[in-house]
Amino acid sequence: MQSLHFDADTLSSKTMSAEAAAALIPAGTHVGMSGFTGAGYPKLVPQALADRIKKLHAAGEDFRIGLWTGASTASELDGVLAEADGISMRLPYQSDPTVRKQINAGQMQYTDIHLSHVAQLAWFGFLGKLDVAVVEVAGVLPDGRLIPSTSIGNNKTWLQLADKIILEVNSLQNPGLEGMHDIYYGTRIPPQRQPIPLLHAGDRIGQPYLEVDWSKVVAVVKTHQPDRNSAFAAPDENSQRIANHIIEFLSQEVALGHLPKELLPLQSGVGNIANAVLSGLNAGPFENMTSYTEVLQDGMLEMLKSGKLSMASATALSFSPDALKEFNDNIDFYSKRIVLRPQEMSNHPELVRRLGVIAMNAMIEADIYGNVNSTHIMGTSVMNGIGGSGDFARNAYLSFFMTPSTAKDGSISCIVPMVSHVDHTEHDVEIIVTEQGLADLRGLSPTQRARLVIEKCAHPDFRPALRDYFERALASKGGKHTPHLLTEALSWHSRFVETGSMLETQDQPEARRA
Amino acid sequence: MQSLHFDADTLSSKTMSAEAAAALIPAGTHVGMSGFTGAGYPKLVPQALADRIKKLHAAGEDFRIGLWTGASTASELDGVLAEADGISMRLPYQSDPTVRKQINAGQMQYTDIHLSHVAQLAWFGFLGKLDVAVVEVAGVLPDGRLIPSTSIGNNKTWLQLADKIILEVNSLQNPGLEGMHDIYYGTRIPPQRQPIPLLHAGDRIGQPYLEVDWSKVVAVVKTHQPDRNSAFAAPDENSQRIANHIIEFLSQEVALGHLPKELLPLQSGVGNIANAVLSGLNAGPFENMTSYTEVLQDGMLEMLKSGKLSMASATALSFSPDALKEFNDNIDFYSKRIVLRPQEMSNHPELVRRLGVIAMNAMIEADIYGNVNSTHIMGTSVMNGIGGSGDFARNAYLSFFMTPSTAKDGSISCIVPMVSHVDHTEHDVEIIVTEQGLADLRGLSPTQRARLVIEKCAHPDFRPALRDYFERALASKGGKHTPHLLTEALSWHSRFVETGSMLETQDQPEARRA
Repeated sequence: MQSLHFDADTLSSKTMSAEAAAALIPAGTHVGMSGFTGAGYPKLVPQALADRIKKLHAAGEDFRIGLWTGASTASELDGVLAEADGISMRLPYQSDPTVRKQINAGQMQYTDIHLSHVAQLAWFGFLGKLDVAVVEVAGVLPDGRLIPSTSIGNNKTWLQLADKIILEVNSLQNPGLEGMHDIYYGTRIPPQRQPIPLLHAGDRIGQPYLEVDWSKVVAVVKTHQPDRNSAFAAPDENSQRIANHIIEFLSQEVALGHLPKELLPLQSGVGNIANAVLSGLNAGPFENMTSYTEVLQDGMLEMLKSGKLSMASATALSFSPDALKEFNDNIDFYSKRIVLRPQEMSNHPELVRRLGVIAMNAMIEADIYGNVNSTHIMGTSVMNGIGGSGDFARNAYLSFFMTPSTAKDGSISCIVPMVSHVDHTEHDVEIIVTEQGLADLRGLSPTQRARLVIEKCAHPDFRPALRDYFERALASKGGKHTPHLLTEALSWHSRFVETGSMLETQDQPEARRA
Repeated sequence: MQSLHFDADTLSSKTMSAEAAAALIPAGTHVGMSGFTGAGYPKLVPQALADRIKKLHAAGEDFRIGLWTGASTASELDGVLAEADGISMRLPYQSDPTVRKQINAGQMQYTDIHLSHVAQLAWFGFLGKLDVAVVEVAGVLPDGRLIPSTSIGNNKTWLQLADKIILEVNSLQNPGLEGMHDIYYGTRIPPQRQPIPLLHAGDRIGQPYLEVDWSKVVAVVKTHQPDRNSAFAAPDENSQRIANHIIEFLSQEVALGHLPKELLPLQSGVGNIANAVLSGLNAGPFENMTSYTEVLQDGMLEMLKSGKLSMASATALSFSPDALKEFNDNIDFYSKRIVLRPQEMSNHPELVRRLGVIAMNAMIEADIYGNVNSTHIMGTSVMNGIGGSGDFARNAYLSFFMTPSTAKDGSISCIVPMVSHVDHTEHDVEIIVTEQGLADLRGLSPTQRARLVIEKCAHPDFRPALRDYFERALASKGGKHTPHLLTEALSWHSRFVETGSMLETQDQPEARRA
């Protein structure tokens, strides 16, 4: 497909207000919107659609959509549509407070999918029909091809699959973005698939533009609005300790000959701990590194600036206001060193495994046997979603999962007897890191892992109770491969729900051990 | 590397008894043996080693090894070494009763690894040094290259990595096996990896022989012994019902245009249910199918014979005595239609995803939200291991998990509120099938899945209690994304441990609902 049905009048003839465009979205449809971690999402049409929905609801009419995106977006998309009670189902990842609240209240259905799986599931037809695409772009070429914005996510797929397309052309996005993207049009449905010809993190295997059939474009909306650019917290002491443990470990692996001295391509999840690790790497001993990741945050921008990172591949740019200024002021420097790809490529198992990515992802909790919960609070409420952590962890060369050892002012232990939800199984978790230390679980049995995780990663306040649980489980009549006390395995979580703390009252553990 | 240091005298000069060969294995070493589901394992050296270990133990000496294989083996390998208390640690999969007993008694460490991960983890150095390889082959070429046996598993890797090699040359294996294998020597460690040039299930991308550096070969042992060839149970009524549900579903998917009429390459786990599904497919409406799987069992041999299956790819041949006779009597026919590969290729995520494999794996239990337990009994004792189910399920085009709805004469429900161990998360499980019905979970939220799994898959004896759990969890104060009652979530398992049944006494559920 080329960018068909485009001539000199097309753009002007299709340009309209956000309200007029929003009026073209029917009720009960699946709408695929752009957006990945607060970058490159449509800014005006979702608000106009939310306004329309509120009016219809006030008039007693039903109106909700199924909302598909790249990943999380921003309050101008997820937030306003959720506040209008306009989303019946959501996939594949979200981080909006209102969306989260509605999911956990049972008012919105949420399908939490590996980010590399979304485009292919849509292509296979397993998610139902995609009716409308609403996609932000940075510009339109004279031949009708589209300059992608600050994220790509699933935009290629949405443009190909949707019956109707609404484009938001955002003139605030830096024109220097042009040429930074690499859209691979070689994907196929089995049995027609071919190897993906990417060998290095910085390889370009596609073209810098999105194609579109303009006969499907029903509206073009002009915008001039910034992305959500949240500031990061300065790395706190715990984050710095986690970073130090990882850097020390990587240095040892280089010394052992397990890693080349420039390491292997880095993947880093989103958030303050991840950013602290990147800051640590920027101050650390490794040179000429590369990254193959989902999201480029401040930390990787600093590493590109310093030259520690020679090339970065991602599907989205998610900067603080300061980092955005740095990026915009020096876009010629950065555009030579950054490749933005569709998320089916940035997260592709084939590519993650081939490149040998070093995966570093945050988690909510781990259990002593190395199972990781990335998504659920106390087993029942979803936080954000699995995102790309599964794509990377399963296929990585080395896979780290990171968390402070406690949460909520020490009332929650992030190392528990049994996680309340499993997103990464014992078969996929190699290294667990807290500010207390690092547990290298490679090649170990569950009981060997348990001893390491308790002694290296758990907070001292919870270590005696974890030892107590493990030893009593080991002495019980159950199997000793993965010793558990089934009636107590989730008691730390239920205690928190009941009392506000996972800590036992002071005399209990003593009495039990007596 | 070629097959170096081989001349006319090499073979005879290194030939010795199994006892003499076993004496060359030092205590405390890692030993990589051949063997994958009772095919192609060494038959004599393990027994000789076990005899030696028993004598040393009787004399008060320590002697245990770390045992790495392809997957499960047979009593002549796992069984005899475990009975001699000769295995300190085991990976990556086992199904031997004595090994299982020792693991669950805490006497043997067991590291349960995705089968596609084993070779690369060994290459990365993450499992420690491989000291000795003990590999069965079907013959030795005049130039020193090896004709592989009835399984390949990790043999290529063991031969490359081990310091010392012991070969068992089994003259009972059919000479017609020569040419059936495809050993791909293009694997590399990152950052040197390249795309794997396999596009169709039957493609040959390597060579039919294993290479070996004969300067590392310390012993050649001649054997003339059959593989473990267990008979299959005739498909029972439940297995046939499961097969019928799957075939009906696949027919619908073809009708919807989700699958080509010859389907996509089939992967089938090992066991009686899997074999029943294959029998069903052999009698069903699909023609010209292919398979891309781990193990070729009787069912696929029948499909090759009937012509329903045009080509089969696997890493091991695991036949009943009758099927083995059919295979041996017609090996010229079958050798054109079967490709045996290393397990790093048969199970490779890159290839499974590219080919769009239809994965069909047995499980121990699923929970109402679609999490699957493939490995653990009542949360603590391991059964066999995850095997290749994760490699296939995560990367498949369609992924089925199958089980009868009950076990142990109806005292265990295989559909539970929360699984006692997670091997496949809610993000990786598409379709759950029992004899009761099929739950198609694609694109659904957890609560939508729960209703389907309960109504379609659970046994009627347990359905009311599952509905009751779900409705009470939904009405509780916890989150409604994945409703759970944390104090009850594992109560079905603890009830079984205490009373021998997951069924509640008759009046309890009524009283609770009153």
